[in-house]
Amino acid sequence: MATDTVQTSPGWLQPDRLEAARGQLPIVYIEAVPVRVDHLGRVEGVGLLLRPQPDGTISRAIVSGRVLHNETIREALWRHLTKDLGADADPQLPAAASPFTVVEYFPDPARSGFHDPRQHAVALCFVVPIAGTCRPSQDALEFSWLTPSDVVNGQITSEALRRPRPTGPSRARPLRDQPQLIGPS
Amino acid sequence: MATDTVQTSPGWLQPDRLEAARGQLPIVYIEAVPVRVDHLGRVEGVGLLLRPQPDGTISRAIVSGRVLHNETIREALWRHLTKDLGADADPQLPAAASPFTVVEYFPDPARSGFHDPRQHAVALCFVVPIAGTCRPSQDALEFSWLTPSDVVNGQITSEALRRPRPTGPSRARPLRDQPQLIGPS
Amino acid sequence: MATDTVQTSPGWLQPDRLEAARGQLPIVYIEAVPVRVDHLGRVEGVGLLLRPQPDGTISRAIVSGRVLHNETIREALWRHLTKDLGADADPQLPAAASPFTVVEYFPDPARSGFHDPRQHAVALCFVVPIAGTCRPSQDALEFSWLTPSDVVNGQITSEALRRPRPTGPSRARPLRDQPQLIGPS
Amino acid sequence: MATDTVQTSPGWLQPDRLEAARGQLPIVYIEAVPVRVDHLGRVEGVGLLLRPQPDGTISRAIVSGRVLHNETIREALWRHLTKDLGADADPQLPAAASPFTVVEYFPDPARSGFHDPRQHAVALCFVVPIAGTCRPSQDALEFSWLTPSDVVNGQITSEALRRPRPTGPSRARPLRDQPQLIGPS
Repeated sequence: MATDTVQTSPGWLQPDRLEAARGQLPIVYIEAVPVRVDHLGRVEGVGLLLRPQPDGTISRAIVSGRVLHNETIREALWRHLTKDLGADADPQLPAAASPFTVVEYFPDPARSGFHDPRQHAVALCFVVPIAGTCRPSQDALEFSWLTPSDVVNGQITSEALRRPRPTGPSRARPLRDQPQLIGPS
Repeated sequence: MATDTVQTSPGWLQPDRLEAARGQLPIVYIEAVPVRVDHLGRVEGVGLLLRPQPDGTISRAIVSGRVLHNETIREALWRHLTKDLGADADPQLPAAASPFTVVEYFPDPARSGFHDPRQHAVALCFVVPIAGTCRPSQDALEFSWLTPSDVVNGQITSEALRRPRPTGPSRARPLRDQPQLIGPS
Repeated sequence: MATDTVQTSPGWLQPDRLEAARGQLPIVYIEAVPVRVDHLGRVEGVGLLLRPQPDGTISRAIVSGRVLHNETIREALWRHLTKDLGADADPQLPAAASPFTVVEYFPDPARSGFHDPRQHAVALCFVVPIAGTCRPSQDALEFSWLTPSDVVNGQITSEALRRPRPTGPSRARPLRDQPQLIGPS
Repeated sequence: MATDTVQTSPGWLQPDRLEAARGQLPIVYIEAVPVRVDHLGRVEGVGLLLRPQPDGTISRAIVSGRVLHNETIREALWRHLTKDLGADADPQLPAAASPFTVVEYFPDPARSGFHDPRQHAVALCFVVPIAGTCRPSQDALEFSWLTPSDVVNGQITSEALRRPRPTGPSRARPLRDQPQLIGPS
């Protein structure tokens, strides 16, 4: 990350400092499940991103990312949703302040059901209706709307997927911040 | 209620039967707090209706009404919101199924903090962002957007109000169904 | 239902009147998922009842029942939990007033995912930690604690079950009120 | 903080490192509102701590504190509740994972309604019934149960209070970590 980026984005840590903090503090994340709803608010589609992984495989992901210093949770939701789904996604952020659930990721896989090898992350999870058109950003191969029953039944395999999500949410989720945080790579 | 109305609206009870049921069963209501939100979902305005009361006074009210037989809660929310706020209100019903609170009204004022002299009502309460234009229906004198701080501080008096809400939510709320249910009165 | 029962339980309807109301109004129910939690509040067990059905089979059920006229939701939760799980169950009713979800049952199986052939029921659902000892009442054959992973994985079959729950929640749930309401009375 | 404390409490940062992180990352907090409930779960009392402030005044506080690295939210709730209310408090942590609200504190008082001069804190807020006996720890002068109406009406002044809470939640709340983090160590 270049110096001038740091100057204009004071919420970002220099990579080495973030790495140090990740070993010593829980890191605040947001996670958003994009949904299509009808006029009665009923969910008609659940959005999933397909992302290339460092090992050449593809995995599914929801929208997820870090909350920066001095950034509100709502601002972080907006930033990550419009970054991942495009500027025309028109996310309808909920009026309620509380997440529908909180997921805790730990470096130790046995600590909870959720594993993140890089850090202890506390993720506030929201369901966000998408009113606009999704044009996924460059690092996501594809964006798909699944039906709620597809999601519940786990029938979300696709010809485009060489193998299903390899190691759970922790593989897909942390990708969000890597280009900015771990350097040019 | 005329017979042909009953035929086309099978969810409605004839007035005498509803009165009988009201003495014997809790009645399901929805209540909706209309809000204006900004692009981050932050509440910028809270909508309140001003309604004429049978005694000639005016009181404030939120959107409220009965859930009919065979009607879903979402359908009841849509029906009451578009009836009270107009066809162009464009209410954004929440994707989540659960109300933010449940208010129980009892004929006995000492039973809970909420009183409804006509019935035992169980009201499922939702906050609903309004994306369109509100044109209140004929039985409401006026519709106003208040700021959240006005609502919290209770500074919602108005020259248009001859006296403040007389007996709490139970006065304003039950008016919703009276013309249809209790007849010409 | 005998006359003296009606006199001492004014919230109960005479069977014919309840049947009439069931065809014309949504009926308010509570549903409770009994759980065992550790000192950190983590769910260690989920309680399920096994109930004999009219057709001779056995089905699983959660605690469920009607809210009576003039009865609060909390009173209904307490009444049904202690009736089904015994007087020593010591249910820890939640301090929060809002259900974690609301399930709507309709006589028309295509109306929602939840079917109740007798009525349109609006069920407010709560998770209730049980601190005491469960001794199921006479109309329940057995009470079992399952692990959360058993429930999630659907591996809740048992030698005691001649066949799994036959027609979804609507078969097991409505049984709760039948002896009082539809019985020979 | 002495070296041996750091060795036995790996979740704690050395003071200088925590200060550095506080300027660069949002810090995860829990806040707990201790309540007394009756057998129906209705709130009968709301617990408040009275704490001496560095300027010699006394302020009210709820239970609040930082979530450590590798500590779950439930463990942090338990640790702070039993530390502040005593080992016999017997807090009944909720089975639900989601906070009833999330409060965001910022160093800039104009950023949200909540101000913390030391840091950007994201506080997950829970209501926790207390089943046991409260014996506040040494740094709290007194622990009081208020009625819900006292809390709602703001009538919580006391002869013991030389002046009411001086600068809002941010004064009382951050005290929790000060002895370890900002003290002479």
